[in-house]
Amino acid sequence: MTEANVIRVTVWNEYMDEQKKATASVYPDGLHKTIAVFLNQDKAISAGVSVITDAEQGLSDQILDNTDVLIWWGHIHHGDIRDDLVKRVTDRVQRGMGAIFLHSGHKSKPFMALMGTTGYLGWREADEKSRVWTAAPAHPIAEGLPSQFLLEREEMYTEPFGIPEPETTVFISWFEGGNVFRSGVTFQREYGRIFYFQPGHETYPAYHDPNVQRVITNAVKWAKPLVRVNSRDCPNLEALEKIGS
Amino acid sequence: MTEANVIRVTVWNEYMDEQKKATASVYPDGLHKTIAVFLNQDKAISAGVSVITDAEQGLSDQILDNTDVLIWWGHIHHGDIRDDLVKRVTDRVQRGMGAIFLHSGHKSKPFMALMGTTGYLGWREADEKSRVWTAAPAHPIAEGLPSQFLLEREEMYTEPFGIPEPETTVFISWFEGGNVFRSGVTFQREYGRIFYFQPGHETYPAYHDPNVQRVITNAVKWAKPLVRVNSRDCPNLEALEKIGS
Amino acid sequence: MTEANVIRVTVWNEYMDEQKKATASVYPDGLHKTIAVFLNQDKAISAGVSVITDAEQGLSDQILDNTDVLIWWGHIHHGDIRDDLVKRVTDRVQRGMGAIFLHSGHKSKPFMALMGTTGYLGWREADEKSRVWTAAPAHPIAEGLPSQFLLEREEMYTEPFGIPEPETTVFISWFEGGNVFRSGVTFQREYGRIFYFQPGHETYPAYHDPNVQRVITNAVKWAKPLVRVNSRDCPNLEALEKIGS
Amino acid sequence: MTEANVIRVTVWNEYMDEQKKATASVYPDGLHKTIAVFLNQDKAISAGVSVITDAEQGLSDQILDNTDVLIWWGHIHHGDIRDDLVKRVTDRVQRGMGAIFLHSGHKSKPFMALMGTTGYLGWREADEKSRVWTAAPAHPIAEGLPSQFLLEREEMYTEPFGIPEPETTVFISWFEGGNVFRSGVTFQREYGRIFYFQPGHETYPAYHDPNVQRVITNAVKWAKPLVRVNSRDCPNLEALEKIGS
Repeated sequence: MTEANVIRVTVWNEYMDEQKKATASVYPDGLHKTIAVFLNQDKAISAGVSVITDAEQGLSDQILDNTDVLIWWGHIHHGDIRDDLVKRVTDRVQRGMGAIFLHSGHKSKPFMALMGTTGYLGWREADEKSRVWTAAPAHPIAEGLPSQFLLEREEMYTEPFGIPEPETTVFISWFEGGNVFRSGVTFQREYGRIFYFQPGHETYPAYHDPNVQRVITNAVKWAKPLVRVNSRDCPNLEALEKIGS
Repeated sequence: MTEANVIRVTVWNEYMDEQKKATASVYPDGLHKTIAVFLNQDKAISAGVSVITDAEQGLSDQILDNTDVLIWWGHIHHGDIRDDLVKRVTDRVQRGMGAIFLHSGHKSKPFMALMGTTGYLGWREADEKSRVWTAAPAHPIAEGLPSQFLLEREEMYTEPFGIPEPETTVFISWFEGGNVFRSGVTFQREYGRIFYFQPGHETYPAYHDPNVQRVITNAVKWAKPLVRVNSRDCPNLEALEKIGS
Repeated sequence: MTEANVIRVTVWNEYMDEQKKATASVYPDGLHKTIAVFLNQDKAISAGVSVITDAEQGLSDQILDNTDVLIWWGHIHHGDIRDDLVKRVTDRVQRGMGAIFLHSGHKSKPFMALMGTTGYLGWREADEKSRVWTAAPAHPIAEGLPSQFLLEREEMYTEPFGIPEPETTVFISWFEGGNVFRSGVTFQREYGRIFYFQPGHETYPAYHDPNVQRVITNAVKWAKPLVRVNSRDCPNLEALEKIGS
Repeated sequence: MTEANVIRVTVWNEYMDEQKKATASVYPDGLHKTIAVFLNQDKAISAGVSVITDAEQGLSDQILDNTDVLIWWGHIHHGDIRDDLVKRVTDRVQRGMGAIFLHSGHKSKPFMALMGTTGYLGWREADEKSRVWTAAPAHPIAEGLPSQFLLEREEMYTEPFGIPEPETTVFISWFEGGNVFRSGVTFQREYGRIFYFQPGHETYPAYHDPNVQRVITNAVKWAKPLVRVNSRDCPNLEALEKIGS
């Protein structure tokens, strides 16, 4: 793995005081750092972090220009993200940057903007069991995963989920309280690959789970840009064949 | 509703002695007749039945030529269906006939032939509860259905389900024993629309359930042919524009 | 057809002075009126018009609340549409309103917002011939259309087209100068159906063409809402099954 | 590239006397050998060949067990392929083997069996020009390809093409005589990836074209199995959660 081939990941997290407090016992340094740490155990990946209190809300051109795959965790502060920065993110995805939206990211501005949908779902915080089933075992994001794995406690998200029909439904979750949810789904938006993954309520230890870590690591490799392009301006083209013959 | 517009349905069932015996208390006349009866309550539909012991295994040209939507229930006798009749069915679907495969029909020869897959899944008979969730509430097959409905006892079918990525995942089922399954999925094969629906183990009363009846009735209307074509031979065509100018 | 079942269409057009001037010989009253007129020949449809110079840019709540399917033609003034009105349109689509984007509408704000893409394409104005091929002859939008039809002059739009993989590619166009384009494509965004259709450069008579009229009429019927919903707020739900047993 | 990672390709060709005669000036050793030769220029690939006159029609278990990606060229002898061997091929694909069907392979038994469709299309042999457009420039199969490339002479294939809606429409071809065709399309059937590519009439030099070679080489890498599985028998599974609580 040469340095040039390493996948550069930025894990973005809103990480304001109320999250620091709520997650202190589970993610002492913030869940973004937990994610970056396990990603960095893979030699093919180099992961850094940024947070909403950084300059330009952690979404500067410099950061995005050096990011192959952006991982997004946000919740209470979705509405605080500046619209010009949302546009900066979606523009990067359309031109090739991969994007992984975690958990409550279904209601983040960039996810909704890329989907064209509201990310509607039903939810419940009840310390309930969830089982994540692999619906597409041949998909690269499912590589090495068992047919299902258990999360002892997870926030419930339920169908109907307000997203476009996914390119691939990789995972579907079972919840103890009687619900189901398409918990791992892929999309393509021009040059950029997008993965949404449901587990990861901030007060539960999902990001310490080896299977969850495997999913996110696989997703980073899958979402790596194959090519990045510059302008998306529409070109005026000359004819290739004679017109009016 | 003029007679010409009525949707002609044939409900096909293998209905051999062992099924008659197993289902006697739940479906005294066979589940195919139960299905035909509730379909015929809708003035837009005219449903008849055929079974494996009929002439040409209930799949004569006369029957298929007068069928707009074929409903299929088979299980123990999948392997007994003659290959030429399987071909006759798939050919009709490719030329416009709708097809609805119920429950164990995921392993029927025509379903596998139309999917190009094996219909792989895991299963369990344990008198367990199932909840059928609507994942695509705007799909015509979900019209009038609640966000979920309960079946007190159903055979469990589980992911991963060996089908192509569906056109639309309309329903996803939750099972008490910890499993999930894409229980209502649509496909298109040339001119024919196809719906697979999981509920309907022969010893459980699923086909007496109003929500299940609603799903199948909706599916018949959705699968009605828009157009039917004859030959699928590849035509040799003249040029529309001058070549070699 | 009772009044309650009539599909209410609003044909929106930017229709500013430069368009009036450019289209005067082809569409004396504006292309929006030409479209409304042919739609109104179908008893199942009741079509009105609105333009950018109307109150609230022709996109008032009153108009949208009484619109089942919105048809959009815009070009030079894409950037002038107020962002709150764009949001109002996309919100209506997500809750059930159908939307048909014509020609240069690939770069309109509502289309890009619903797609999550830029609508990138190459183009050429060269009075060239175009042939619109039916790729999905069993789709309701293709009903009654021939395998292909000719437009004597059309603006060329070419692949690669910056859209998500369509739900169905209904039409693909051939251009005399050597290009191809997915000219009729469908999408679903939650409760709303969306159709993009390429023909319709403002100085060419495409909307006088019977085949083009047939496509748009079919599309209106296809995009008619099956159901419209209100809030897309995410509900907090109680458990259906006992947790922690 | 260790030997274990090399992608093992088998290029299958019917290659009977009439093909030998027709292609002698363009492909003196048969088009299968031309394809194998250019594939073997890539160190990641090890390509061999088999033909219909080999033992078991070139489709022995030994060959298929040692094939990661099967490339198929057939035409006049489609009907001669033994049904048990067709089943052997489709079974391998469903369990992970990649498959690339070239040109007239749209009517081969394995392709039709994997698609569930007839492969219907219109055609013309008129020495006409074709331009292959990249519709999905971010797809791995399009890597390094230009926005379009010219084939001076190709057999015309035209829409409507009787296939399921593709996973991705990678290429769309323009034909001089006025036609268009989805000429490069992908599908997934359980564990196996499938690519269909239109160029390659046996008397034209398409397989000597660097762009065509690039497409097929890319497709081999894309279709490489991520995992291969054994039985597709449906397992009877125990409950993960207590039933009847």
